[in-house]
Amino acid sequence: MKILRINMSEDAPEVKFEDLGQYEGLGGRALTSAIISKEVDPLCHPLSADNKLVIACGLLGGSAAAMSGRTSVGCKSPLTGGIKEANSGGQAGQVLGRLGIAAIVLEGKPKGDDTYKIYINKNGVKVEKDNSLKMLPNYDLIEKMKKEFGEKIACVSIGPAGEMKMSGASVALTDMELRPTRHAGRGGVGAVMGSKGVKVIVLDDTETTPRQPKNVEAFKEANKKFVAGLQKHPVTGQGLPAYGTNVLTNIINEVGAYPTYNFKEGRFAGARKISGEVEAELEKQRGGNPTHGCHRGCVIRCSGIYHDKDGHYLTKQPEYETVWALGGNCGVDDIDKIAMMDFLCDNYGVDTIEMGATIAVAMEAGLLKWGDADAAINLLHEVGKGTHLGRIIGNGAAFTGKAFGVERVPVVKGQALPAYDPRAVQGIGVTYATSPMGADHTAGYSIALNVLKTGGFVDPLKPEGQVELSRNLQIATAFVDSTGMCLFIAFALLDQPETNQALLDMLNAFYGWNMTDKDVVEYGKKVLKFERDFNLRAGFTKEHDRLPRFFYKEPLPPHNTVFQVKDEELDQLFNW
Amino acid sequence: MKILRINMSEDAPEVKFEDLGQYEGLGGRALTSAIISKEVDPLCHPLSADNKLVIACGLLGGSAAAMSGRTSVGCKSPLTGGIKEANSGGQAGQVLGRLGIAAIVLEGKPKGDDTYKIYINKNGVKVEKDNSLKMLPNYDLIEKMKKEFGEKIACVSIGPAGEMKMSGASVALTDMELRPTRHAGRGGVGAVMGSKGVKVIVLDDTETTPRQPKNVEAFKEANKKFVAGLQKHPVTGQGLPAYGTNVLTNIINEVGAYPTYNFKEGRFAGARKISGEVEAELEKQRGGNPTHGCHRGCVIRCSGIYHDKDGHYLTKQPEYETVWALGGNCGVDDIDKIAMMDFLCDNYGVDTIEMGATIAVAMEAGLLKWGDADAAINLLHEVGKGTHLGRIIGNGAAFTGKAFGVERVPVVKGQALPAYDPRAVQGIGVTYATSPMGADHTAGYSIALNVLKTGGFVDPLKPEGQVELSRNLQIATAFVDSTGMCLFIAFALLDQPETNQALLDMLNAFYGWNMTDKDVVEYGKKVLKFERDFNLRAGFTKEHDRLPRFFYKEPLPPHNTVFQVKDEELDQLFNW
Repeated sequence: MKILRINMSEDAPEVKFEDLGQYEGLGGRALTSAIISKEVDPLCHPLSADNKLVIACGLLGGSAAAMSGRTSVGCKSPLTGGIKEANSGGQAGQVLGRLGIAAIVLEGKPKGDDTYKIYINKNGVKVEKDNSLKMLPNYDLIEKMKKEFGEKIACVSIGPAGEMKMSGASVALTDMELRPTRHAGRGGVGAVMGSKGVKVIVLDDTETTPRQPKNVEAFKEANKKFVAGLQKHPVTGQGLPAYGTNVLTNIINEVGAYPTYNFKEGRFAGARKISGEVEAELEKQRGGNPTHGCHRGCVIRCSGIYHDKDGHYLTKQPEYETVWALGGNCGVDDIDKIAMMDFLCDNYGVDTIEMGATIAVAMEAGLLKWGDADAAINLLHEVGKGTHLGRIIGNGAAFTGKAFGVERVPVVKGQALPAYDPRAVQGIGVTYATSPMGADHTAGYSIALNVLKTGGFVDPLKPEGQVELSRNLQIATAFVDSTGMCLFIAFALLDQPETNQALLDMLNAFYGWNMTDKDVVEYGKKVLKFERDFNLRAGFTKEHDRLPRFFYKEPLPPHNTVFQVKDEELDQLFNW
Repeated sequence: MKILRINMSEDAPEVKFEDLGQYEGLGGRALTSAIISKEVDPLCHPLSADNKLVIACGLLGGSAAAMSGRTSVGCKSPLTGGIKEANSGGQAGQVLGRLGIAAIVLEGKPKGDDTYKIYINKNGVKVEKDNSLKMLPNYDLIEKMKKEFGEKIACVSIGPAGEMKMSGASVALTDMELRPTRHAGRGGVGAVMGSKGVKVIVLDDTETTPRQPKNVEAFKEANKKFVAGLQKHPVTGQGLPAYGTNVLTNIINEVGAYPTYNFKEGRFAGARKISGEVEAELEKQRGGNPTHGCHRGCVIRCSGIYHDKDGHYLTKQPEYETVWALGGNCGVDDIDKIAMMDFLCDNYGVDTIEMGATIAVAMEAGLLKWGDADAAINLLHEVGKGTHLGRIIGNGAAFTGKAFGVERVPVVKGQALPAYDPRAVQGIGVTYATSPMGADHTAGYSIALNVLKTGGFVDPLKPEGQVELSRNLQIATAFVDSTGMCLFIAFALLDQPETNQALLDMLNAFYGWNMTDKDVVEYGKKVLKFERDFNLRAGFTKEHDRLPRFFYKEPLPPHNTVFQVKDEELDQLFNW
């Protein structure tokens, strides 16, 4: 496996393959975070030539391991000012692995404002100016790429938001149907890709083969056990395949942790109407598909295909966090309009979570009415067009709050809080506050134990035990994010020691390692250390590891609790 | 002297006079910074009920001391997120002192969006809802106050920008002609006043007398020596009275430190056309006045009155920093148009420095052409109207840079750099980087020694000695800003030990103190300590005490130097 460095500062961008060297043994998030932490000036402007955009497959990317298709995108974040790793499903990770590329590193910055496309196949790399791609929405862009390069490709691209360098801009990855539906959404990674002048990276693994494990038989055996474990567990074997992640709407609403009207209430009257159950039923009725994988090798199949009223493809099955952000958080209970917003976010290339949180802040500011889905749709069009209002919205919730003088802005380190209120699920509040990524539910998904009771139970309404819970999950997650594995395997890993062992066996067979659970912990800590160290040098302190003050002061109905984990406890999270 | 606290959270805002208590012996900046540092949660939202706005006169405010009319406005800054003291000329400081009020502290926040006016005279305080004032520009507002309260008042007010809670919003203070021309401009203090729902504070010192010194004769004697010293010194006795602060345009341009085209060059071809010499001549020709005091008791008289081509009042004589910001920095060399912009900034209530820096960033983004004064004027109208573009511009340079994806944004701690390029005057770069206020030339005005050679000379192009220089000036300034004295006395203080002693004698006679030069240093350090301590608890680190990276990388013509003071040296500034 090689690192592919492309320096965009040159008129004819320089392309260089390097051995992994000091990065040997790192993949996915471990690799992006190590490169950013070691090579990027923490005080550089995120849009400057000194920032880098790293696109990496996981340790098992390109192998035959099930679920190993995640792609990590890393940089200094324009949204948070700290380190960022956003990972995504889609095909790119597997294709990168098969091409022998552990990571693409985009460096430098073009002098002019030309737009580039990059084509990579087994024969090499072609970097070309193509100003005809300027400001194309992701779907149109991918259609163009299909015409030019055929259908056996995987694309990594930005929409207009990334080109306009908006802090809410995502990096889009195509799925199995070659649609730009999977996004490294958080932290404005798309803006950094835009600052490099790169519109799209087209990956073509024609005439490549899967990466071969050192120990083929042991690997096969472990993979089999691993898949069996996933299929056996109720979350990964039943809940997620049947309804997708949106199975959570009813669950989180029921426990009173569903942030509604910009985090004012914990239950939404319209929740049922936008639940996964309703969504899946609609998809079936209209010829969509609620049970579908986002990349080759997925056995959980929580993604899906959403059709409109006329039975035409509209978008992929919107995720729980998307449905929440653009739905309940804005008082919107119309699933078709939420799906339309999901499509628009994907097409313009913006993070659905950040956009939903932002629209709710705009509602708080009085720009549009609570629940007005059509006005929200219009706002997203403003983003895509890059109007002045769109420039505000596209830069996220903190930015929009500042533009309109709004005080209640739910962000940590400048990044919007996702779909679980920290007052009703205290553990996730610890993750939001302390993750080097800013408010990010995936960084230490305490919901698993606080609510779903996988791997144990920690009372979500009490502060006790939440720091330890979040710490353990953040460490484990940093490891899983490095393997290329979809994080949803964690449900089975937490509950079934044999599935956890199967993952280790797979890695060990693949690399000839002897990794144990203890090593996993060390690995995760190492990744977090890269990230914390970068943030420290970027000027972050414990004062940045806090929730906005209103979470400590405004009780959240129906439980009427506030966030109660003490600052001193939060400060112990990384003291291991 | 009392502290007047007004709690705006109550429907009938609570008014309370308190003894100085723990704040005894503090005035001006020392008082605002002590109150903010001790009473405000450093992690609160700047627009929340937990922030406070402190409006304080200096130690000698309301006395017969010459030059003692400065008013300090303090809060947690919406622009920087740190502590803020912005001080201003105008009448308020003297009137506050005569009313026996050391500081007005606006606390809390109204529940609704009613607009309040506050009237204070010797009989007490009246806080009244007055929604007819909503969105009035400062000049119209003051006309209304004159009709209501007569002409013997001094007003402290905000324009529409403050009401819209823009981070560039200023607090306006009326001058001797009862015009809103003096501004506590920096750091968005006007937005905090807006968040308190207070549009204007009308101060009426009818039937009050000057504050009496403990030792009347010694005070008189010292004041006489002090005034004589100011009149003797070439800067305060000749340069400033003749041309105002804009005498600096030719000087700074000549030394190649005049930031042009958003800090791309150190000399501006059009500088002479907008110089103080030209400005003063025009003022004389048109019936304005280049030599005029901004408050009673001013003997330097560097302010002035600017008339338009038809001989009608347009605005006060624009300051050097204003002329630079809206002039050379934007490539504009039309002094009438700059004066128009000065008026618009005063009228809408925004900081001229921040606005000029912001317009230049907008030019960098391609929104308008370099040198296009009419387009710049339109931008300011957008701010006043609060259009979406105006919301962007009104929030300052960092915000506008982010909105439009601009990398070259000259800010420290989110606040725009003023009119001296740190690559050509390294000492001012140290002040910009390290001042707790963000980039602020007044916080430690190294130009005095680096360029004007008052109080000595430190080579502006070399890094040596700049940290010590800035340190000493920051300490001395923190003291001067606490006395209520105009900072311009510092030229005479630096060069003439007897004038420096006269100031001390005046203070000692007034308060019955025995303050020496050593105590001055301790006083200044104490103020800086309040400020640094607040910022530390707000999450600031040494990484925030840095200039933007491009000052270290892009050499500035004509000297082709970069900023060379090492980080480790910057970090020693507060190690005294």
